[in-house]
This record gives sequence, structure tokens and C-alpha cells, in this order.
Amino acid sequence: MSMDEEHSIDEDRSQRTTMASRVRVTRMGGVGAGPRADQVVVEEPLRINIEQGELREVLGSTMRTPGHDLELAAGLAVGEGILRTSDQLISVRPCHDGNGPVQGEVTVTVSADAVIDASHLGRVATPSSACGVCGRDHIDEIVAAAPRIERDVRIDLDILASLPEQMRSRQSVFDRTGGLHAAAIAMADGTILAVREDVGRHNSVDKVIGYAIMNGLAADVLVVSGRAGFEIVQKAAMAGIPVVASVSAATSLSVDVAIACNLTLAGFVRDGRMTVYSAPERIVSTSSADVVNG
Amino acid sequence: MSMDEEHSIDEDRSQRTTMASRVRVTRMGGVGAGPRADQVVVEEPLRINIEQGELREVLGSTMRTPGHDLELAAGLAVGEGILRTSDQLISVRPCHDGNGPVQGEVTVTVSADAVIDASHLGRVATPSSACGVCGRDHIDEIVAAAPRIERDVRIDLDILASLPEQMRSRQSVFDRTGGLHAAAIAMADGTILAVREDVGRHNSVDKVIGYAIMNGLAADVLVVSGRAGFEIVQKAAMAGIPVVASVSAATSLSVDVAIACNLTLAGFVRDGRMTVYSAPERIVSTSSADVVNG
Repeated sequence: MSMDEEHSIDEDRSQRTTMASRVRVTRMGGVGAGPRADQVVVEEPLRINIEQGELREVLGSTMRTPGHDLELAAGLAVGEGILRTSDQLISVRPCHDGNGPVQGEVTVTVSADAVIDASHLGRVATPSSACGVCGRDHIDEIVAAAPRIERDVRIDLDILASLPEQMRSRQSVFDRTGGLHAAAIAMADGTILAVREDVGRHNSVDKVIGYAIMNGLAADVLVVSGRAGFEIVQKAAMAGIPVVASVSAATSLSVDVAIACNLTLAGFVRDGRMTVYSAPERIVSTSSADVVNG
Repeated sequence: MSMDEEHSIDEDRSQRTTMASRVRVTRMGGVGAGPRADQVVVEEPLRINIEQGELREVLGSTMRTPGHDLELAAGLAVGEGILRTSDQLISVRPCHDGNGPVQGEVTVTVSADAVIDASHLGRVATPSSACGVCGRDHIDEIVAAAPRIERDVRIDLDILASLPEQMRSRQSVFDRTGGLHAAAIAMADGTILAVREDVGRHNSVDKVIGYAIMNGLAADVLVVSGRAGFEIVQKAAMAGIPVVASVSAATSLSVDVAIACNLTLAGFVRDGRMTVYSAPERIVSTSSADVVNG
């Protein structure tokens, strides 16, 4: 066991650089405002194939932080009920083409007594079909498929900074205990249109976007209580919402997609400050200390 | 807008009771140890159908907190690229059978110009196929399908309480900034076998479970940095891991499944204390103050 343990810790350390990615951001609000370099966690798709004798099928794709991809694929096969014992795992390996290993695609080969039926295939949480995850050039395709936000809007920095707290004050008592994720949609003048909560981060976003479409509203801002990952930015872009504000971090893919969509993505929105990852020109300030420098 | 706002807030308040569920728990460690009533957030499956003319297909199922189900379904249809404008939404309604509305199933009816192709269908994040989400009696079926943990283990309360902090100390520097979720597998003697991190909570769990199956290890405990929702408990049960420890809350469905699996589910594991939702007999204490009363 102790060798395994050492092994796993060493692997984690060696992959630290892969798990984070450098991006250019604009800090806004408070001291230290202006452009700078920052780090975001890497989020990329992994396609997992299942192989059993002559059968070779796609189990599904999942967004993940690169590293330990083989374990992720094997673990998903356990969770799906395909692998019950380690004897059933023949191999798990990266895919190869003529040029070497293919990033973002792995194959799990299982023994004849492992149970694969049609219900397993394509059922692993797959990013929204709108994202176009397919083929090898995963990320480029996702970014290229991102819908472009044409609608323009300007929002005051102080108003944007106040939205997470406004959202929090409208959550029910139970939710404020931390049991639920929240999302809100708002207008640029600071009016909150709807606040919704759910055990799932994505569900709370779907609920406020559903509220908007059911009421024929065009919201300016989506506010989320958690991290602004790819799917959150993608959902905002599909709904034509030009600004996303998160109290937490962005990811590498959410930043790439936000830039491609011309969507304003603001993270760490708290205490009057924020880190803006894309399209900062939509955020304006009446205070000279907050003016964007680049 | 102000009317919409009022409406949304009132809806949230009226649904407060639906969103939380009472459970019996055992508090362990520190003062106040013993059995008591507690609240957990409700987590239940929602099946979403898409209807266009004569076509009626399942878009997918998602675990969610009940409330605003119609908005959730409409918002998912936007995120999937099916609905682009509010004109394309003809209706969204609960399903009915002879006895009235069917809980946990809704239908979105879209106009002829909405685009539905095969790639949309069944792609919405669907709970693990092992859970058996189908038909109307969703939760009962999920709970009935849960694999029973036969392997027994006893773990000292202080050892279990120390695992989240042990896991945190093995995360890389970047992860400790809060950008990543972590999971660990451990033995009952406190030995951590592997720690894995990912932008996705479920991925970090899949990675440690994959590590176990690739190395032929039978772990005693799964530790997670976030909430212990249904899918986390389900993944542990599928991997035959008898104890799940979370630093955060459990959900109604994770508690139901843990009880059905005979899996020990401990939440809020921090500062030497924890809330045990199921099978507390696996957790033993050498200190008389920590003894379980019921």
C-alpha cells in the first residue's frame, strides 16, 4: 500500500502544471485594478471507449481536468456497472493515431464476462449537444461552435459587484445554510428577475433560463453561486445572455468559450471586486480608481 | 418586471418545505452526540419529454431539487439548442395519468420550426444506468436497485474524522485554493490509498475508484470534498466501498440509497464531529463521550 500511496502523490505533483493554465485577465474594483496574468483550472473533454472482443463503442464524453485519465475511465466503467471486479479489466490505454497518443481519448478493454448492454452506451454525462464534442480536435471544435453574443449591454461595476449578495439575500433560509446552489438572472440596472436554487449547479441555471424563455425576457446577466465552468458559460451563450458573474473561479474552457462567444465572464465577484476573463468593455465604472487599463 | 420578481420570490418561499426533507441522524463526536432529527435537501429525478407535432421523445432525466420543474425543462431545452426563442415554446406542462399529475415527469411542446434531431435525445445528463431510473415510480426503483454492501468494516471515529484533513493536506497547492474538487480512498486504519482532484466532483470520485480497480484494492472509505449526493453514494456502492465521508451535506436520495445499500454515510465530517445518516454501527469510538445512543 505504501508504494501505491507514494505513486499517487508523485503523480499528482508531476501534473500540477497540466491542471492549471495561464490566462490574461482584468482585475476590476478596489486597489490593484488593471490587466494581469492569472491561473485557471484546466477543463477539457475526455472521450471514453469501451472494447470487448470485436465490440468497440463510445461509453461517452465527460469534461474533466486532465490527469489520471485512465483511472477516470476505469472508474466510470465501475460506476456504470460494466466492471465489477479487477479481473474484468483487461486494459485501459490512451488512443493512438499515426502520430502517437491522441489527447482526450482513452479505451477501456473489458473481459467477455463484463456486462455491456445498450443502456450503458452514450449515457455518461455528455456536454450539451450544442457544444459539438466529437472527433479529435475537441476543444477547437467546441470553441468554434460557440454561439456569438450579438446583443450589447453596459453594466456598472458596482451594480455587477452587488448582484451575488442580492441573490444570496433572496435565497430561502435553508439554502443559505449551503445545501443548495443558486442562480439568478438580472438586468443591467441591477433588477433581479428571478432567483432559483437546486442541489445541482446546472439545474439552478436551467431554471432561471427557463423562467426567462417562459416569460419572453432577455436577461443581461446570469449570476451563479458556484464555479463558472464550461457548461454554465455555454448555457448563458445559448440563451443569449451577454454577462456571466460567478462568486468563484472560471475554468480554461469557460474562458476560451467566453472569448469566442464575445461573452463577458467575471469571476470572484465579491467585496466590490472581480476578475474579468473576457469582454471587460461591457463593465463600466463611474469611479476613476476602477477604470480598466487594458 | 417587478411583478415577475415578486412572483418568483413568492414561489421560492412556498416551496421551502418541498426542498428540504426530515431524516433521522446520529451525531457523533463532541458534545451533543446521539440520535436526532435533521434536514437534508431533497434530490429526486425529473424526466423531461419533448413533443413536436406527432413526435414525442424523452430528452432525458436529471436529478434535481423539486420546484420550478417547468422552468428547468424549458431551460434545458434552451441549453440543448432546441428552443431559440420564446415563440418556439408552445407549452410546458406536468404529465398526467388517470389519477392526476405524475410527479417527476414534464413535457415541453415546441413549434414546428424548433430543431430537434437525434443528437438531442437522451443526452441530458442521466443518472448512472445502474440506478434504474425509468417508469413512474422513480425513487422506489432507484432505491430498490441499489447494490447491497455485504463487506463489513469497523472504523474508529477519530480516524474517520481525520480523513478530510489528511486528504486536503495531500492536495496540490493549486487545488487548495478551491479551484478543484477532491476525492480520496482510504483503509479503516487511516491509510490514504489515493487522492485525486478534478474540476468535476464526480470525476475525482471516478479517478480514485478507477485507481482501486486498476490496482486490485478494496478500499474501506471514500472521502469527498463536496456534497454527498446520490451519484457519489451510488458510485461508492457500485465499487463496494462501505463508508462514505463528506465534509458537506447529504441529500434525501443519497440517504435513502445509503440506507438501502447498508452503506455508512457520514456528512459534515469536520472538527472531530460528524452527522451519520445510515449504518452508524461501522463507526466505533474509544471515548465514552462519543458512544452512539441509538
